[in-house]
Amino acid sequence: MVNPLISDRDVDFLLYEVFDAPALCSLPAFADHGRPTFDLVLQNSRRFAREVLFPTYKAMDAEPPRLENGRIVLHPLWHKIYPQLVALDVIAASRPYAAGGQQLPLLVTTLASTYLMAGNLNAAGLVGLTAGAAHLIEEFGSDALKQDFMARMYRGEWTGTMALTEPQAGSSLADLKTRATPTGEGHYRIKGSKIFISAGDHNLTDNIVHMTLARIDGAPAGIKGISLFAVPTRRWQGSTLVDNDVAVAGMIHKIGWRGGPSLALEFGERDDCHGWLVGEPGRGLSCMFQMMNEARIMVGANGVSTASVAYHQAVLYARERLQGRPPSVKADASRPPVPIIEHADVRRMLLRQKAIVDGGLALLAVTALQRDLAGHSTTQHERHRAGLLLDLLTPITKTFPAERGFEANALSLQVHGGYGYSSEFLPEAWLRDQKLNSIHEGTTGIQGLDLLGRKAVADGGAALSILTEEIEQAVQKASAAGVFPAACTRLREAMARIAELTMQLAQKGLAGDVEGMLLHSADYLELLSIVVVSWLWLQQATVATQQLGQDQGDADSYQGKLCAAQYWLATELPRVSHLIDLCRSGEDSYARMQPAWF
Amino acid sequence: MVNPLISDRDVDFLLYEVFDAPALCSLPAFADHGRPTFDLVLQNSRRFAREVLFPTYKAMDAEPPRLENGRIVLHPLWHKIYPQLVALDVIAASRPYAAGGQQLPLLVTTLASTYLMAGNLNAAGLVGLTAGAAHLIEEFGSDALKQDFMARMYRGEWTGTMALTEPQAGSSLADLKTRATPTGEGHYRIKGSKIFISAGDHNLTDNIVHMTLARIDGAPAGIKGISLFAVPTRRWQGSTLVDNDVAVAGMIHKIGWRGGPSLALEFGERDDCHGWLVGEPGRGLSCMFQMMNEARIMVGANGVSTASVAYHQAVLYARERLQGRPPSVKADASRPPVPIIEHADVRRMLLRQKAIVDGGLALLAVTALQRDLAGHSTTQHERHRAGLLLDLLTPITKTFPAERGFEANALSLQVHGGYGYSSEFLPEAWLRDQKLNSIHEGTTGIQGLDLLGRKAVADGGAALSILTEEIEQAVQKASAAGVFPAACTRLREAMARIAELTMQLAQKGLAGDVEGMLLHSADYLELLSIVVVSWLWLQQATVATQQLGQDQGDADSYQGKLCAAQYWLATELPRVSHLIDLCRSGEDSYARMQPAWF
Repeated sequence: MVNPLISDRDVDFLLYEVFDAPALCSLPAFADHGRPTFDLVLQNSRRFAREVLFPTYKAMDAEPPRLENGRIVLHPLWHKIYPQLVALDVIAASRPYAAGGQQLPLLVTTLASTYLMAGNLNAAGLVGLTAGAAHLIEEFGSDALKQDFMARMYRGEWTGTMALTEPQAGSSLADLKTRATPTGEGHYRIKGSKIFISAGDHNLTDNIVHMTLARIDGAPAGIKGISLFAVPTRRWQGSTLVDNDVAVAGMIHKIGWRGGPSLALEFGERDDCHGWLVGEPGRGLSCMFQMMNEARIMVGANGVSTASVAYHQAVLYARERLQGRPPSVKADASRPPVPIIEHADVRRMLLRQKAIVDGGLALLAVTALQRDLAGHSTTQHERHRAGLLLDLLTPITKTFPAERGFEANALSLQVHGGYGYSSEFLPEAWLRDQKLNSIHEGTTGIQGLDLLGRKAVADGGAALSILTEEIEQAVQKASAAGVFPAACTRLREAMARIAELTMQLAQKGLAGDVEGMLLHSADYLELLSIVVVSWLWLQQATVATQQLGQDQGDADSYQGKLCAAQYWLATELPRVSHLIDLCRSGEDSYARMQPAWF
Repeated sequence: MVNPLISDRDVDFLLYEVFDAPALCSLPAFADHGRPTFDLVLQNSRRFAREVLFPTYKAMDAEPPRLENGRIVLHPLWHKIYPQLVALDVIAASRPYAAGGQQLPLLVTTLASTYLMAGNLNAAGLVGLTAGAAHLIEEFGSDALKQDFMARMYRGEWTGTMALTEPQAGSSLADLKTRATPTGEGHYRIKGSKIFISAGDHNLTDNIVHMTLARIDGAPAGIKGISLFAVPTRRWQGSTLVDNDVAVAGMIHKIGWRGGPSLALEFGERDDCHGWLVGEPGRGLSCMFQMMNEARIMVGANGVSTASVAYHQAVLYARERLQGRPPSVKADASRPPVPIIEHADVRRMLLRQKAIVDGGLALLAVTALQRDLAGHSTTQHERHRAGLLLDLLTPITKTFPAERGFEANALSLQVHGGYGYSSEFLPEAWLRDQKLNSIHEGTTGIQGLDLLGRKAVADGGAALSILTEEIEQAVQKASAAGVFPAACTRLREAMARIAELTMQLAQKGLAGDVEGMLLHSADYLELLSIVVVSWLWLQQATVATQQLGQDQGDADSYQGKLCAAQYWLATELPRVSHLIDLCRSGEDSYARMQPAWF
């Protein structure tokens, strides 16, 4: 048996039984498509991920890029897989025809991309980054930039990066110092240091375009002084590309994502780095937030994929590895050992992983669906509604797979026992990969502040009201199907208490106590994540129950869904009440704790 | 500021304010000692760990042992530190004078050893393993073996290992196949394969003694057919040591504990491997359990130490790293950035680590104290009582630091942000080290089965009754001091519910449903761990409150204790109720889940 990376059955279940992806084709944007196109896209991703990408993963993890003569040299396998990845036409798959894309729903392309991520995170990451960078130019760039940069990036001829972080500022973008000096010749001179720039250099394509945040000379301090620039590694001089003074200052020795480079870059050491403004001056962070929100959902997809491939590996191992006997016959050594999947505690570890992985995949799907609806629904009301729900879900979709995925990855290693602790087996590599997802594109702490401080309280809590409606619908359907009645009640009550809690916290903030309002933002993020994933498990359980009633053909898969839903709703949903209590009470231990007391 | 590895103040607080270590000196075994001896032992460990061991850690992690010509070559630094480690006289520190030891209380030596572990896990591990192996011979070996092997091991001239695990059997020792054939010449011929043997070979000492489980020819299948042997790598031929046919078959590429080797060993490939029986034939596993119980507590100490050194590194980093501003002035970029310890969510991550680390250290201390009392109290009643409590605490002391320590280590990495994801910073190395502790010396799953299936139900639940008494005493003292009244009530109620739950589960087992009884053993281990650590936090909070009332001299430390206690009792103790509900209800998702449904 080989690792499927992502379960085809689960993806089909989400697309065609839970979320009805073909219904999107009634929207004008997607009118050319239908299930056959979707299946083809999925089939191409699946095959490529399994046959080409996955077999390269271990070698690329073992031999990270090297820094030689100031430039990055990638593992030779990159040169084999990158052209094929470009040929798969994934970079612009969801972009409009006008931009060179295929105008496919993100619901489909996002799930298709999870196969690539599960097969080889770095390879998928490079095209994802490029797509995000090009999308910024598509949205905010001049026609000249679209022609020069965007089109080549969508075709995979050049790649892209996000160049935000600076050594002294870290997550605090307000403190970034990179400067942009106007030249009067249509471009700016860029000067500054960036760090942790993924794919910031490589030897795969002729050029790399860095979407760079910088301050135009004379701009105010803080966030309002930040503008966005496209800064290529090489620039056109006539029809040839010449060096644009973007130097590799150092390579980070990452513990995971080892197939690709993460770099410190120096812009304009020789005062000869040209950058082109993208969007309005002073609006850089606001433009970048578009890319960041996309990137956060991509991080969520990375998290789900990394947890998924490890989960499937653990299931395969647990079915094959013979060890021990059930407790009832433990003493009888004359009986043959059983596959460890027969041990209840091993099944517990596997089912917990499944609850996280399938729950995370559903979360990813529902978030991608909101992006499709927010962008392409035919009424302003529907677009607005989906946009609000998308905003609320984004920090959850970014964080849940990162945090719970890490737990799932640790369980996959644990199922492998002593062998899991060896680098000859893959679970430890995925565990290392997963850890980045709680850090990059906004740490878990920052997602909590974003969720409670912005998304949940925006427009008088409009997004939470929409979530409440969605949950109410799911509860009604579940109740009609007789699915998990106790959990239905609990979920409905939890959502009501969350709405009330959010109002109280918002009032605290309005009264000037912003720190008090946000003190338990980590708990708030955790509890809302549990509720959202419970909502998705309830929906999946309802569909599985209905399908089991109609057709026993795929009973194994539906039974598995029901067990995982039961597990999640029994073990996680009841925790929400305690977390709400913590937020309400304003438990103040770490608020009071002084630095000297540690 | 340099990393203290373990807080001296915390160790002194436990030894001299919470557990009254000098009171042990009223027992005849420890009559020669007093606080001055204890302080000297601690001081030696502290200095050696900080000045010698810790500076070697990173280099040894980066350059693991090599397998050359069938033998293991260690990092050259080993040759510098090992003789000093032996000179520190830690191997036999807690053993009786008669065995060449110093007869020190384990309460003191265990806490002293945490400094060594936090400084360099592999170095401390080698002497710990040797001590455990020698202790087996001291307890069960013949006088000849004591003279030949034990004495040299306690003096550090030879080292020791535990050779239990076999490739096909893993955790299922009943299935081990290594054979021992009597020769009629006082020794047996040993033949078989072992795997994951820590320090199974090296070039530090002349010889290594493997405490090996094997079956004497004709012995029954299963556990009762297993005997214990001392099998040296070299044996005496006259007065010279000759090869004893113990070959290195392979080296495991571990992800952590990289300073020392973990090996596959082949005994008797040439049919020339001599082993000497230790204890009675067929009693091997029962003898080995002594060493395993010690080893499990040592694993707990490793876990606490690994979490501690990472916690202190995170505190240092958070005090120095400037980034961002508090929410209330976030928008004002004219203000200077603050140390990240000023951010509430960073303090949350640090306080959570402190709650786990200090809680784990207290757990380690109370367990070591029970070992001292079980071995040396003057009445049979007291020894029996301490022994029961020790049995109950052992799986918790093994597991809590492993599982919660892993969480703490991940938080230390998270506090370091992007830098934490780089191997140039140490937190990622400690995270890798920590992961072993949930696997070796009995996985977390096995500890859960041991706790619920044996320790909690033995003697009609006698150990739980003792724990209930201890908790009642702590609650009464806390109540008298006015400390955390709500938590006092909650803790008392939780313990009563646990006693009732345990009775129900035991009855289920007696009625023949062993699988049903043990189904939630993982939850049971988790909930009892939370209760035990809550008990220890309540004790610490009571002492801190009393000391604050008397003397403000060390107020920072006591205030920190109170905040950590508050955090633990507010966030973790309330979770117990839900976990008890899960155990009581027999929630059956993973019981029902079929292998084909994953």
